[in-house]
Amino acid sequence: MKRVNVALLGLGTVGTGTYKMLQSNQDVIARKTGTLFEVRRILVRDLTKKRKVEGVKHLLTTRFEDVLDAGVQVVIEAMGGIEPTRTYVMKAIEAGCHVVTANKELIAKHGVELEQLARGKGVQLLYEASVGGGIPVLGTLQHLLKANRIHKVSGIVNGTCNYILTQMSEYGRSFDSVLAEAQEKGYAEADPTADVEGFDSAHKLAILCRLAFGVDVAVDDIPRKGITDITVAELEIARRLGYSIKLLAQAEQYGEEGPVALQVAPTLVPLSHPLSGVRGVYNAIHVEGDVVQDVTLVGQGAGEQPTGSAVVEDLCNVYRLPALRAASLRRPMILPAGEESGIQFLLIETEEVLAADVADKWKADLLDTGIQVLDALIYPDHGRSHAAFLVRNWEPRLVSVLPVEWEVSIKRIITRPVLAASVAQEEKEVVSAGSVS
Amino acid sequence: MKRVNVALLGLGTVGTGTYKMLQSNQDVIARKTGTLFEVRRILVRDLTKKRKVEGVKHLLTTRFEDVLDAGVQVVIEAMGGIEPTRTYVMKAIEAGCHVVTANKELIAKHGVELEQLARGKGVQLLYEASVGGGIPVLGTLQHLLKANRIHKVSGIVNGTCNYILTQMSEYGRSFDSVLAEAQEKGYAEADPTADVEGFDSAHKLAILCRLAFGVDVAVDDIPRKGITDITVAELEIARRLGYSIKLLAQAEQYGEEGPVALQVAPTLVPLSHPLSGVRGVYNAIHVEGDVVQDVTLVGQGAGEQPTGSAVVEDLCNVYRLPALRAASLRRPMILPAGEESGIQFLLIETEEVLAADVADKWKADLLDTGIQVLDALIYPDHGRSHAAFLVRNWEPRLVSVLPVEWEVSIKRIITRPVLAASVAQEEKEVVSAGSVS
Repeated sequence: MKRVNVALLGLGTVGTGTYKMLQSNQDVIARKTGTLFEVRRILVRDLTKKRKVEGVKHLLTTRFEDVLDAGVQVVIEAMGGIEPTRTYVMKAIEAGCHVVTANKELIAKHGVELEQLARGKGVQLLYEASVGGGIPVLGTLQHLLKANRIHKVSGIVNGTCNYILTQMSEYGRSFDSVLAEAQEKGYAEADPTADVEGFDSAHKLAILCRLAFGVDVAVDDIPRKGITDITVAELEIARRLGYSIKLLAQAEQYGEEGPVALQVAPTLVPLSHPLSGVRGVYNAIHVEGDVVQDVTLVGQGAGEQPTGSAVVEDLCNVYRLPALRAASLRRPMILPAGEESGIQFLLIETEEVLAADVADKWKADLLDTGIQVLDALIYPDHGRSHAAFLVRNWEPRLVSVLPVEWEVSIKRIITRPVLAASVAQEEKEVVSAGSVS
Repeated sequence: MKRVNVALLGLGTVGTGTYKMLQSNQDVIARKTGTLFEVRRILVRDLTKKRKVEGVKHLLTTRFEDVLDAGVQVVIEAMGGIEPTRTYVMKAIEAGCHVVTANKELIAKHGVELEQLARGKGVQLLYEASVGGGIPVLGTLQHLLKANRIHKVSGIVNGTCNYILTQMSEYGRSFDSVLAEAQEKGYAEADPTADVEGFDSAHKLAILCRLAFGVDVAVDDIPRKGITDITVAELEIARRLGYSIKLLAQAEQYGEEGPVALQVAPTLVPLSHPLSGVRGVYNAIHVEGDVVQDVTLVGQGAGEQPTGSAVVEDLCNVYRLPALRAASLRRPMILPAGEESGIQFLLIETEEVLAADVADKWKADLLDTGIQVLDALIYPDHGRSHAAFLVRNWEPRLVSVLPVEWEVSIKRIITRPVLAASVAQEEKEVVSAGSVS
């Protein structure tokens, strides 16, 4: 039996989940990998804090130097944040340790340099837990779909936002009320900005782009829109038009060396699309490859257990699966968001009540200006109205023209991207005799 | 650049998809794996048959001996069937070749002996394409969820059945009419028995059990029921109760060395479960592990491209990923089907029209005999009726008692298993502060 000594940086949610699984599943791991992993040191900030795991007191230290002195071969980083985490990870790599991390922000912002450092030292840097929690999407892209040209990745990668949108949509509760309750219950952070404004999703999208397309995208270059302006009425209107609204992180590459269109935004997802029914804190990633066509992975995107599972699976793979290829990553040309999508959702909230037949009149007006309208709906809402359209060739400048032309008081006009129907919806007749089974 | 010579056995749907991908994605494969795979020989039955790929004439042979003489390191088996396929695969392994196959029947029935042979010879036997087409479920179980104790696997693994049920459910078409059209279009075989009676799903379930639980299940030991008796009315009734009906292959293990409950049967799946919305020819596998909780993989379960993709991904992994552990597989105790499931769907078709309040009376009668009724529905259907119940503690012997007691002419009584709600539905409050993201 091979023995591997491990250090943990941090004993919060992820660290605790990791430690627990290494104890509870030691027998499975030993049987499947022939390796015994032993935690030899745990870096914490506070030695006196009450811990959720027993028998770790003698392992705790507040000094990073103690970690490297403990003779460990793998350092598991479960601290989060950029500093001092980044410095510790670099020191661990320089000391010849493999590193496993769940830190999406660190990997999104400094992953490329850390990987170069790791390659130079001949060690592995693995970060499955940084995207989609327990969902093994990075391993799938790297090992199980590598002969495919991946051209599109679309994901629900923030459980807090998906929980809020699911509660709003299924129980008609307002954004503020769900968020407040989520904060009270500990589902959402006291400062929810990173989640609800889409920063967290952008971090994960940058990581997905690296694995899927082999390109290096700066987080700041990803057009990003949060979910704070979504109303229950809008969710209901979308549903009536045949869509759910999800905070979607999308990336599409046009040709292997071509530009990449990126976007984190509330997006209309056709109800029959595999991503549409993903509820609550669940995450899901939809991957399109040139030969496999599409594969969707669904699972729990966060929490002590799923994230701990992803960390431990990575730990086992340090010694089993080959490292990332050594090619340096290209900085791709980034296309403006939305330019590539054919259909948009146009929502006009008016201060007055609109008659149902206004839809037809406005539809005709839009058509006159070259906007193709695929569907339209007038939705009354407490003495006001929403006029909703699915349009093609939308012109943003029309936002300033329409209210004048239509002589209505417009409270706001929103446009949102619409995800194209999946292959499943198109029911393509690609399957030849006897092959469907 | 490493060079690997490959032989193809068969140039039907799978063989053609494999050959095409090895041509079209040669550059991607070379870049990612550092290996050039070259097809050196293709075994076919008929040299004169028109082929869907160009420039292969000089590679074709009808003699298996020519394949082994071609100096190949990997044999890709894409012939299907048991003989002479099994003999060829054994000869290839004995000659020291790695084997990649898409043949679910061969692997379900003879996989264990073939794997032993391969281990003895120090070569790999890979068969990702045999379950779920392009969905990398076997690789996921083997490499990306191996530190978890997998305790349950539920899958929609037959695209023909899922296509038929989707068409019946969404367009109200009869089983016979969808099947006839599917046969005409080439979606279903002239003899659809293997698909619609669940044999194909049972083969795949046996393979999943091997990878998920490390047990050796004989295909004949899997209780199996097909989809031929499902009606449009039943699908509609299930929908009104909050379920879709899917042909589900399910396996659950009770404890690591414990018994296994197995079943292929039309099963009610809660509409909010990740498997419920899987439409058309799509396949999906829901995996439950002790730490990761649940992961669902969705994708195209058949067709030239997805299946070819799975074969080629396997081919690349022959030289990259470690082989299966050498442990010999245990024959588990098999539990009778259905015994383990708490809730059942009970559908009673009567020859007469029932009043809506009959539901309450019958519900009370069922309760008197110890059957707990969770939901009930009377559904009129062309001068007849269906009475539907979701029950707990169902007693099969009641089927002969109830008609007499209720004084109605009963056309038929069906019971079906009901899949438990997924973790997502239960909305468990497991997620602690700041961990949902």
